[in-house]
Amino acid sequence: MSEKIYVGVDVGGTTVKLGICNAEGELLQTYEGPTEVNKGPDTILHNIATYVRQIVEESPYSWEQLAGVGIGIAGFLDIPNGFMKHSPNLYLNNVDIKGFLEKELNILVKVNNDANVAALGEAWAGAGRGIQNCVMYTLGTGVGGGIIIDGKIVEGFQSVAGELGHMAIVPDLEAIQCGCGKMGCLETVSSATGIIRMAEEAVARGDRTSLVNVEKIMAKDVLDAAKAGDEVATRIVSRAAYYLGRSMAMMAVILNPECFIVGGGVAKAGDFLFDQIREVFEKYTQDASKENVKIVPAVLGNNAGVVGAAGLILRG
Amino acid sequence: MSEKIYVGVDVGGTTVKLGICNAEGELLQTYEGPTEVNKGPDTILHNIATYVRQIVEESPYSWEQLAGVGIGIAGFLDIPNGFMKHSPNLYLNNVDIKGFLEKELNILVKVNNDANVAALGEAWAGAGRGIQNCVMYTLGTGVGGGIIIDGKIVEGFQSVAGELGHMAIVPDLEAIQCGCGKMGCLETVSSATGIIRMAEEAVARGDRTSLVNVEKIMAKDVLDAAKAGDEVATRIVSRAAYYLGRSMAMMAVILNPECFIVGGGVAKAGDFLFDQIREVFEKYTQDASKENVKIVPAVLGNNAGVVGAAGLILRG
Repeated sequence: MSEKIYVGVDVGGTTVKLGICNAEGELLQTYEGPTEVNKGPDTILHNIATYVRQIVEESPYSWEQLAGVGIGIAGFLDIPNGFMKHSPNLYLNNVDIKGFLEKELNILVKVNNDANVAALGEAWAGAGRGIQNCVMYTLGTGVGGGIIIDGKIVEGFQSVAGELGHMAIVPDLEAIQCGCGKMGCLETVSSATGIIRMAEEAVARGDRTSLVNVEKIMAKDVLDAAKAGDEVATRIVSRAAYYLGRSMAMMAVILNPECFIVGGGVAKAGDFLFDQIREVFEKYTQDASKENVKIVPAVLGNNAGVVGAAGLILRG
Repeated sequence: MSEKIYVGVDVGGTTVKLGICNAEGELLQTYEGPTEVNKGPDTILHNIATYVRQIVEESPYSWEQLAGVGIGIAGFLDIPNGFMKHSPNLYLNNVDIKGFLEKELNILVKVNNDANVAALGEAWAGAGRGIQNCVMYTLGTGVGGGIIIDGKIVEGFQSVAGELGHMAIVPDLEAIQCGCGKMGCLETVSSATGIIRMAEEAVARGDRTSLVNVEKIMAKDVLDAAKAGDEVATRIVSRAAYYLGRSMAMMAVILNPECFIVGGGVAKAGDFLFDQIREVFEKYTQDASKENVKIVPAVLGNNAGVVGAAGLILRG
C-alpha cells in the first residue's frame, strides 16, 4: 500500500477528534481522546502528538504513507506559521503549534482555524465536492465562516478572513451591539444566540406567541414554532433568513462563488429556512452574479472538522 | 538585453492604449491608436495585433524578449478562455479574443475585464505595490471593483467577481433601483452618477444649496460645494462616503485585505472624502479585521489599465 494518507485533527475544548483521509477526502479511520485543557498547553500538544501516532498505529496504513497532519483549532492564529496567538477557550497564548508538532512528529503540519477548516472539508469532500469556489456559513452560537477560492482557504493578510458573522449588515435603525463591540453584525440576528435573544425579547414584551410556554428557549424551539405557524417565531426566523440572504447577495457580487454551504444547528431547520434565504438572495443579487449559484446545506456534520483539517495538507 | 518584457493593452471605446512593462511593473514605453469600433470586431482585433507589433518595433526591446500580451477590456468575459461573451460598448459578441490574438501574434495572450485589470495594476505597481491582498474601487460613472488575493485577480466561477458597485448595501427604506434592476446597489449612491442624481433631486426639491446655480451638475461640482461648506452637498457626499465605508467594513471581515485602493474621478476629492470613508470603516469593522488596514487613493491614474494588463502575464 503506497497510497498517501492525510491525518486531520479537530481540537475542541473537551475532545480532540482525529481522522485519516485519502487524497479524495474519504474518511477512512477515526479516533478521539480528551483535550485536557486544564493541564495546560504542553499536555494539549503532547496529547495531539500521541493521538496522531495512535490513529496511524491502529489503522491498516503505515507512518510512511502519511503525507502530513492538519490541525483545525479555534482562536486567533498566525496561519502561515501555525502559531496560536490567542485561543480563549483552550487557554493557548503564543504557542507555536506547527513548530512543536513538526519537531515531535517529524512530519509536515498545517494549522488553520476551525471555521475555515470546516469550510474546506465541505468544499473538498462534502456539499461542495468538485467545486473550486464556495463560501460556508456555520450557524451556531455565533455565525462562523470560511471562503474557498480556487480550491484553497482565503486566509487574509492577518489570518482573519472569513469572519462572516461580523459583516455589519443590519441597518443602524434596527441594529444592536454584537459581542465584538460593533453594531449590526450578522450574528446578532442569524446565529442561534441571536434567534434566542429575539424570542426572549418578544416574550418579555408580551407578544402573543407559543414560546411563552417554553421554560428555556432554544433556537430549535423558535424554528419549530415558526414551522408550526407561530407568527412571532415566523417573524424572527424570517429576519435571520433575510440577513443571511442579503449577506450572500453581497458575497455573490464580490466573489462570484458557485455555491453557498450552510451548516450548524440552525441550518437543521432545512428547506423552511433555506427557501427564505434563497428568496432574499434572488431579490438582491444581479442576474450575472447569481446564475447557476446554489445555496445548500452542509452534509458532513461534525466530520467537516477532521476532513477539512486533513485537506489542509493538499489544499491549505 | 535578455530582460523579459510584458505588453499591456487597454481597449477603450475610442482608443486602444498600450504599454511595455518590465517584471517590476515599470511602464517603459507607451503607444496608442484608434479602436475603430464602427468597423466591427475583425478590425478591432487586427488593430490590437498591429499596435502590439508596432509598440515593440518602436521600442529598444526585441520581440524575443516579449513574454506575453495582456488585454484589459470592458464586458462580460469567460476569463480563463479569453472569450468575450458580450461587450455592450464595443459591440463584441461571442468573440474569441485570446484565440485570435495568440494565433495572429504567436505569443501568450491573457484577457481580463477593465476593472480587474486596473486593480491588478494598482496592486502590482501602484498604491498596493508589495501588497498581496487588496481591494480596489473605481468611482466613476458606476462603481467598478477588483479583488486581488495572494497577488492574483479573483475571477469568480463565472468570471464576474469584483462587481463591488452591485453590493446591495442601501437598506430597503432608502433604496432606489440600480441600472442592474436590483434595489440599493452601492453605485446608486457612491458613483459619480449617484452623486449627480442626489444633487439634481435636491435642487428639484428646492433644497437650499449653491448647486441651484450650476447649469449641468457634475460630481465635481457637488464635491467642491461640499468642501466649501454647502450643507446639501455635504450630506450627499457623506452618504456616498458612508456606504463606501460600510461596504469596506464588510469586505474587511470577509477577505481581510491589507489595503483598499480607491480610484476614479470621485476619488479626486481627496482627504475630504477619504477621511469620511475611514471614519465609517472604523466604526463598523471589528478590531481584528481592521488592524493595520489602509484606505488609500489610487496612484496610476489612466495608466492602471495598461500596467495591469501587462501584469496579467505574470499574475493573471
